[in-house]
Amino acid sequence: MEYTKYTKESWKGSVITSPLPPTLVTCGTVDKPNVFTVAWTGILNTQPPVTYISVRPERYSYNLIKDSGEFVINLTTEELVKAVDFCGVKSGKNTDKFKTMNLTTQDAFTVKAPILEQSPVNIECKVRNIVELGTHHMFIADITAVDAAIELLDKNGRLALEKAGLLAYSHGEYFSLGKKLGSFGFSVKKKKKHIKNKK
Amino acid sequence: MEYTKYTKESWKGSVITSPLPPTLVTCGTVDKPNVFTVAWTGILNTQPPVTYISVRPERYSYNLIKDSGEFVINLTTEELVKAVDFCGVKSGKNTDKFKTMNLTTQDAFTVKAPILEQSPVNIECKVRNIVELGTHHMFIADITAVDAAIELLDKNGRLALEKAGLLAYSHGEYFSLGKKLGSFGFSVKKKKKHIKNKK
Repeated sequence: MEYTKYTKESWKGSVITSPLPPTLVTCGTVDKPNVFTVAWTGILNTQPPVTYISVRPERYSYNLIKDSGEFVINLTTEELVKAVDFCGVKSGKNTDKFKTMNLTTQDAFTVKAPILEQSPVNIECKVRNIVELGTHHMFIADITAVDAAIELLDKNGRLALEKAGLLAYSHGEYFSLGKKLGSFGFSVKKKKKHIKNKK
Repeated sequence: MEYTKYTKESWKGSVITSPLPPTLVTCGTVDKPNVFTVAWTGILNTQPPVTYISVRPERYSYNLIKDSGEFVINLTTEELVKAVDFCGVKSGKNTDKFKTMNLTTQDAFTVKAPILEQSPVNIECKVRNIVELGTHHMFIADITAVDAAIELLDKNGRLALEKAGLLAYSHGEYFSLGKKLGSFGFSVKKKKKHIKNKK
């Protein structure tokens, strides 16, 4: 196969990694929750499962997370795109984002921070340590539980996450996920051979 | 708008954050390069731009990066999906992944590690420090340059990244990006009002 080759122009460093998950992070408590949008997140370690979120210290949620040491990363879907955008632009300091965006929470299983009911997967987190990097501080956190939507479990108990319609963020724009192009390991999978009947 | 509400089942912690960018990371030198797939990456800080990759220490590339302190994150596209999968499964120790997958490199602008010609965006990185977390070690790195495909610049010099056909990774599967659903800030943008002619 011949691939496209690109000619490059070099720019100064910037944060262009794409696509990223535009997650809704919940924090505080069920009685006094906050929610805000975070795309600066990802996986740091597989075993034990460790994640992070990077947050500007001037954000309303920053101290809620710093003080409690807990938060939840809620994966987002196409139907939530307006709420995702709104919760990234507006501050919980002067807007009730749950009410405005029609979002609701329920108790988490391992942390006091609530989980978002409209998200198909909630990732419950406990902060390990905070790394100050510049505009953002990184909360490195252990994943203490993953809450999966029962509605998306298939008959084998596997989470059919491809049916959730997850949202992606790329270079200032929100996208749906498109066509499935393969599963991990497909490039080296041996094709099943037809077994010929021996004569 | 009424959103779907999900009922949750709590599982033990795992690394389910999605979608993530299944990037091809290049390291070593132009004369002796290596390439491997990394989805455990993302943005840690906006200004200065800081990123990371988390790598298993037993991987062939681990020491190349540790010794040189440099690597390049290459964003990947739909047409590269087989190469992306292959470079995540096979080791550069005993396979020439460039030759097998028909990938080529060229000189980077700020680091000795090469950039991938088949990638529309190369993110050049210099390691700040290494954090050992368990199965993976995290390389925290400054982004020293971003190399953008001239073929994707529009007439205003903006990178039309949405035309690149970026690849996404979600829960063990590769996806294309689908429909564009909005741009950052769209939820609070005021609609233009028709100006009525005063009588």
